[in-house]
Amino acid sequence: MKIGRIDKGIGVFELDDGSTIPMGEMHVVISTDSYTVHPLFFPGGDIGKLAAVGSINDVVVMGAKPVAMLDAIVVEEGFPMKSLETIMNSMLRVLTEEGVALLGGDVKVMPRGGVDGVVITTTCIGVTDKVITDSGLVPGDSIVISGTIAEHGATIMALQAGLEVEGELKSDCEPLTKVIEIAKSIGEIHAAKDITRGGLASSLNELAEKSNVTILVDEDKIPISENVRVYCEMLGIDPLVLASEGRALIGIPSSRAEELVRELRKAGYRQATIIGRVVDRSRYNVLLETVAGGRRILEKPLGEIVPRIC
Amino acid sequence: MKIGRIDKGIGVFELDDGSTIPMGEMHVVISTDSYTVHPLFFPGGDIGKLAAVGSINDVVVMGAKPVAMLDAIVVEEGFPMKSLETIMNSMLRVLTEEGVALLGGDVKVMPRGGVDGVVITTTCIGVTDKVITDSGLVPGDSIVISGTIAEHGATIMALQAGLEVEGELKSDCEPLTKVIEIAKSIGEIHAAKDITRGGLASSLNELAEKSNVTILVDEDKIPISENVRVYCEMLGIDPLVLASEGRALIGIPSSRAEELVRELRKAGYRQATIIGRVVDRSRYNVLLETVAGGRRILEKPLGEIVPRIC
Repeated sequence: MKIGRIDKGIGVFELDDGSTIPMGEMHVVISTDSYTVHPLFFPGGDIGKLAAVGSINDVVVMGAKPVAMLDAIVVEEGFPMKSLETIMNSMLRVLTEEGVALLGGDVKVMPRGGVDGVVITTTCIGVTDKVITDSGLVPGDSIVISGTIAEHGATIMALQAGLEVEGELKSDCEPLTKVIEIAKSIGEIHAAKDITRGGLASSLNELAEKSNVTILVDEDKIPISENVRVYCEMLGIDPLVLASEGRALIGIPSSRAEELVRELRKAGYRQATIIGRVVDRSRYNVLLETVAGGRRILEKPLGEIVPRIC
Repeated sequence: MKIGRIDKGIGVFELDDGSTIPMGEMHVVISTDSYTVHPLFFPGGDIGKLAAVGSINDVVVMGAKPVAMLDAIVVEEGFPMKSLETIMNSMLRVLTEEGVALLGGDVKVMPRGGVDGVVITTTCIGVTDKVITDSGLVPGDSIVISGTIAEHGATIMALQAGLEVEGELKSDCEPLTKVIEIAKSIGEIHAAKDITRGGLASSLNELAEKSNVTILVDEDKIPISENVRVYCEMLGIDPLVLASEGRALIGIPSSRAEELVRELRKAGYRQATIIGRVVDRSRYNVLLETVAGGRRILEKPLGEIVPRIC
């Protein structure tokens, strides 16, 4: 077998969710991320679940089946063993459910004060015969979202602000494997992206920029839960810039978009919906068609909205 | 192409330097490590160089050609940009020299106090048609070392103790690509391992344990520089348990060992030498034939000898 040349893969300059290495007719897709979320435990998950889900999703939205993971854990001396076990079990539960093998890892202990609690870096490896990028959107595509936005961001932000998080608000941290599988079964995916740091605003802008198209978004189609609205109002922050950890944007020809939404809903993604469409313009842009009937540019958020969100 | 089953690869339970994923007739070898070395800059390198070299070496000693790397950086808010640039340049210099592509990465900023300076996690990916493990030693093999031991450990330990490191003492942090290439050209490598945390004592014990053999080591053959001896005496620590970051142990049939040493020396590894041989015993062991003429068991060091050594 011939080893594919790396320069035919997707590398660091593409700033996609993951990178690819061509090997024969297949592509190895690989992604790495450090997780520093604070607090370590939150409604809907913990840093262990997040570290597994986050890197799996980066590989999944590139069209690959995740097969293996490596983890590198940096833990502060004196960190409770029981908490570390809980975190590791959360991570392993995701890997078991997803059929992803934990191939290897590393643990480093830092003296007190060296690191706040625990930082986990995961690297996920997947394989695919066809890579989905961020740059394939064309005019005529629709943008489908797999669920409500900003749950993870609102949860973490509320906890950091010292609010008690109760009721229905919890992180949406979940693998996107099934979502992308369904989308692949419906038709050609032109682009896919998981919504993480910078929220929907950031993800839409990245898709538009890399595909060099304009995306028109119907503001009132964006699914936001009542809980997220309430917490965002309390905290004075726009839910459009808050992270999700289990939601995908999928760009697909408009002729197949209704069917995709139907199939997603049937599979339990009840808030899946079409939020926008791709149009041609002289330059890339994301335009929000507001509830009031006007249009405004949806800017990419600058800087870090919430520190240690993931 | 058929994707090889992961359960035919080397995974987390083997505790080898890296893990493998069979793909067709090739093996993808992958290794991840977090680097927390303190201080960040030291004679012979910095955390950037170490992070590149360390993960490259884990892949190289498994017989693979390193082709790609991903990095995940966690940096403390307020960390000097200039220092981060120096660190990144050190890392990139190694990758350029080694022909390893930086495929992707992640940067997270932690608020002050969240992390001490910077922690870098690197993942190196390599390919090979034949994996070298830790477990292939057989009686009749010789153990070749590629150079003097404990330079990295002695340097870091001295700096942590507040000593001024001067003269010839510096970290041996260097890629092992050429060493393993030379060894492969000489004959079949039965086992290979880079010496890192826990030093020579730890690496020899791991090789013996995984191969289920006894290794006899000539104490007076172990190459130790005068500088390392002096600092180790000052600090009261055994150089046999101190880390290297650019030295390999290679197990090779005794009939080829002299030739390997000759070729290594010719290539500039002037301290390369045979330090021991593999013999059969009822159980695995590492025995040191001491300068005084006796034999003692060389134990695996317990716990962390020096914190934040790598």
